Amino acid sequence: MGYFAVAVGTATRNKDGKIIESWYPQPILNPTDNLIAALNGVAKLNGGNQTTVIEHSLMSDLSDCFNKAGHRDSAQFCRATESSHQTIVLTVLESDAAPTSIGEGYLKLQLLSHRLVKPHGCSLDGLFGLLHNIAWTSEGPIDLPELADRQMEARLNGRVLDVNCVDKFPKMTNYVVPKGIRIGDASRVRLGAHIGEGTTVMHEGFVNFNAGTEAVSMVEGRITAGVMVGDGSDVGGGSSIMGTLSGGGKVVVSLGKNCLLGANSGIGIPLGDRCTVEAGLYVTAGTKVAMLDNGKQLVKTVKARDLAGQSDLLFWRNAETGRVECLSNKTAVELNTELHSNN
Amino acid sequence: MGYFAVAVGTATRNKDGKIIESWYPQPILNPTDNLIAALNGVAKLNGGNQTTVIEHSLMSDLSDCFNKAGHRDSAQFCRATESSHQTIVLTVLESDAAPTSIGEGYLKLQLLSHRLVKPHGCSLDGLFGLLHNIAWTSEGPIDLPELADRQMEARLNGRVLDVNCVDKFPKMTNYVVPKGIRIGDASRVRLGAHIGEGTTVMHEGFVNFNAGTEAVSMVEGRITAGVMVGDGSDVGGGSSIMGTLSGGGKVVVSLGKNCLLGANSGIGIPLGDRCTVEAGLYVTAGTKVAMLDNGKQLVKTVKARDLAGQSDLLFWRNAETGRVECLSNKTAVELNTELHSNN
Amino acid sequence: MGYFAVAVGTATRNKDGKIIESWYPQPILNPTDNLIAALNGVAKLNGGNQTTVIEHSLMSDLSDCFNKAGHRDSAQFCRATESSHQTIVLTVLESDAAPTSIGEGYLKLQLLSHRLVKPHGCSLDGLFGLLHNIAWTSEGPIDLPELADRQMEARLNGRVLDVNCVDKFPKMTNYVVPKGIRIGDASRVRLGAHIGEGTTVMHEGFVNFNAGTEAVSMVEGRITAGVMVGDGSDVGGGSSIMGTLSGGGKVVVSLGKNCLLGANSGIGIPLGDRCTVEAGLYVTAGTKVAMLDNGKQLVKTVKARDLAGQSDLLFWRNAETGRVECLSNKTAVELNTELHSNN
Repeated sequence: MGYFAVAVGTATRNKDGKIIESWYPQPILNPTDNLIAALNGVAKLNGGNQTTVIEHSLMSDLSDCFNKAGHRDSAQFCRATESSHQTIVLTVLESDAAPTSIGEGYLKLQLLSHRLVKPHGCSLDGLFGLLHNIAWTSEGPIDLPELADRQMEARLNGRVLDVNCVDKFPKMTNYVVPKGIRIGDASRVRLGAHIGEGTTVMHEGFVNFNAGTEAVSMVEGRITAGVMVGDGSDVGGGSSIMGTLSGGGKVVVSLGKNCLLGANSGIGIPLGDRCTVEAGLYVTAGTKVAMLDNGKQLVKTVKARDLAGQSDLLFWRNAETGRVECLSNKTAVELNTELHSNN
Repeated sequence: MGYFAVAVGTATRNKDGKIIESWYPQPILNPTDNLIAALNGVAKLNGGNQTTVIEHSLMSDLSDCFNKAGHRDSAQFCRATESSHQTIVLTVLESDAAPTSIGEGYLKLQLLSHRLVKPHGCSLDGLFGLLHNIAWTSEGPIDLPELADRQMEARLNGRVLDVNCVDKFPKMTNYVVPKGIRIGDASRVRLGAHIGEGTTVMHEGFVNFNAGTEAVSMVEGRITAGVMVGDGSDVGGGSSIMGTLSGGGKVVVSLGKNCLLGANSGIGIPLGDRCTVEAGLYVTAGTKVAMLDNGKQLVKTVKARDLAGQSDLLFWRNAETGRVECLSNKTAVELNTELHSNN
Repeated sequence: MGYFAVAVGTATRNKDGKIIESWYPQPILNPTDNLIAALNGVAKLNGGNQTTVIEHSLMSDLSDCFNKAGHRDSAQFCRATESSHQTIVLTVLESDAAPTSIGEGYLKLQLLSHRLVKPHGCSLDGLFGLLHNIAWTSEGPIDLPELADRQMEARLNGRVLDVNCVDKFPKMTNYVVPKGIRIGDASRVRLGAHIGEGTTVMHEGFVNFNAGTEAVSMVEGRITAGVMVGDGSDVGGGSSIMGTLSGGGKVVVSLGKNCLLGANSGIGIPLGDRCTVEAGLYVTAGTKVAMLDNGKQLVKTVKARDLAGQSDLLFWRNAETGRVECLSNKTAVELNTELHSNN
């Protein structure tokens, strides 16, 4: 009881027959016990987390399982597979344990991109080591050891095999395009990104896996792995958010609601709500920041890390003195329209 | 008399039969009255701005209309459609009124990218609301509500539907590649961009619609919607130009001739000719700028917005004091070779 | 005698029959005299550097030549061409003279990307003028004068010709993916890049031709033409390295080993080993830099160009004074974790 997730989909195998990626059109979070029991009856699973290749002859019965549980989309998919020659897989996650197979890892990345779990909302421990480095091409995913032969075959037949990406993570949009988003250059949003409804990722935007936006955001900068951006916050053109892997140390960097990172700015500390960083200014955890009062007089100088998570901060570099300064009050937000750009 | 534009092309319809995009191989600006009269005779138009689906049986007659008016390319296209099963559309713009249909909007975007009109040279009012958010894929444009089924169909047939972009604006190069340009990564130039002859848009460059370059430019930074860059000006790697939608307020930001934005720099004010911004410096409208004389002595401090549109400005941040400084004279340009990069 | 290189591959010709690009699956550096003699015997070459179209009827004999010289891959390729209708070319470079044909130029770019020569390791003089500006499309490379007709043909047949790039240089991965690399967005690595084993080029990274990395690097910024990055060095997100063509003058900019360019930083001087540039700081050749001792007291102020090539430098901008400062000692590297990001 209390399974974490289940999904049926297709998979790509390499020449050795090993599954190297899998696609799930309608992953299901927290399936009912009845659905799990029914699937077990058909597919003879033995509990635990697993990805099982399903014979096409069983797909009609699987379809019935999903149908009875009210998952008509999955039921319809199962029926549609009957005329297909592709590998069909059923992935069942009894718990949110660290993924131990590629099918499990891909399901978790798709749970994120389907917005069924939020960044940091499921265990991805060890995922990187599991995944194959794949050539994502105009003829589908190709395991790297097989690429050179496929390139030769294509060339000799008058085609160029277009290799768009060589990576462990594919682009999200080839797996799911959740509702209410736009993405200017889809090659810059990895599977496992959580793109909130109402978000536009412009061509200069980038969103890594296990990262993303809550809801309405304009993303024209880079959202590093692990970073979450709150509703109403804008990530300006070419701006940079440090993640957990680099200078930010162990604190997870995030942005609250209604923040604004100016163009070509950057932050290495998490920010609360209604914060603004001036275009072109990079605030790292170690940056010494002059805190000003409303009369713009110096109150004290602190390291930026001491401001982590605070709201209503307005950061800029004084153009006359070069000093990094910060106003901290709730009227700051109205004052800042000159300081930013989202180009 | 005095029609604004006319073009014949193909269109993509969604499952409801609605046109979601259209392509015009040879749009015609300011067609002659004789051509319009002839087209009206064949296609039974009733004046005004409109996009009309044309029966293939009429294409031979349409071809004659274009031929008599000297538009041999359009005539040839009309003849070529006779063996096609695609939807053929004729879009006539009696005036440059705000577009009211997708066919009209797409024609205007193509007038821009064909360099037949310049940015701000035609009305795009309300365009954004008209356009569909489309999945631009390896199998053509797909209306978003139809995407999931198409992804499933592709997967079950052993293909991955490659979704390159989810946006209201497609990339320009799939519609037209005007003469004398190079574009390193075409996904970063939107249809509606005006790329002047002699311009190279490197991989880090970006050009939005209703924006672009006059002539010879090296673009390695981001040209926001509405921004025009003059002949001989370079937009350095990762540099940022604020547009009209963000911090720049209502003033349209532009660059004159022979300007240079250094790598990772940015501007929030329009600049005249022969201006330079040092690599890494962001000058917003509110930046306080120390104006220096030729002896590098302070003359006065002004807000950058007061310098809007001036020529022969050289901006940098003093590395010893952190102050943003500006030299204003015609020899400034020769002095600045150390200050920039176009990588 | 010591020939420079030889390779057999396929080529694309335009409508005039001219070769506009060529692909070599296994280029051979410094072929043995015996191999050259054997190839001459079959293909009747006359010495010098040349690209020759080979009749399919000779491919079996060519295969034997390669086989006897121990190049089994090339031999296998030759045999595989026998059932192909593509243009097959043999390119022989007797010396590393400036390329005089497209086939020679493409071979040299592929020698670089196959890591058979390092950046600046072969003559590319005049290459730019030789190469055609090509539309790189979903239907292969198309010479620009032929593009409009191909777009029309595709549209009338219900396809969109996807034009990914309009440039003299294609993307590397469509020619070769060397061992041990990942590339997030392959459109940003040009053929002729040298991507060292162990390098990851993230989506924001860019590598030009005749440039690249020695070995293990994380590249999230822009490596300009001519620039080489040493083992263990990271090029942070959005960072910029000036090349030889821009503000850097005639000195070739490079990075030594174990350097770190912070996010959105930039350099216009070459650096030695273990150097760090703070996130957001751009150091051009003309930047005045305050050199500090271990007690952070000013020793002297120098222009950055005077520090060119030095090791163990740590650059940052003092957040209290706006001054660009530099610590130069071997413990600097341990101190700098707060100053950077590789997001």
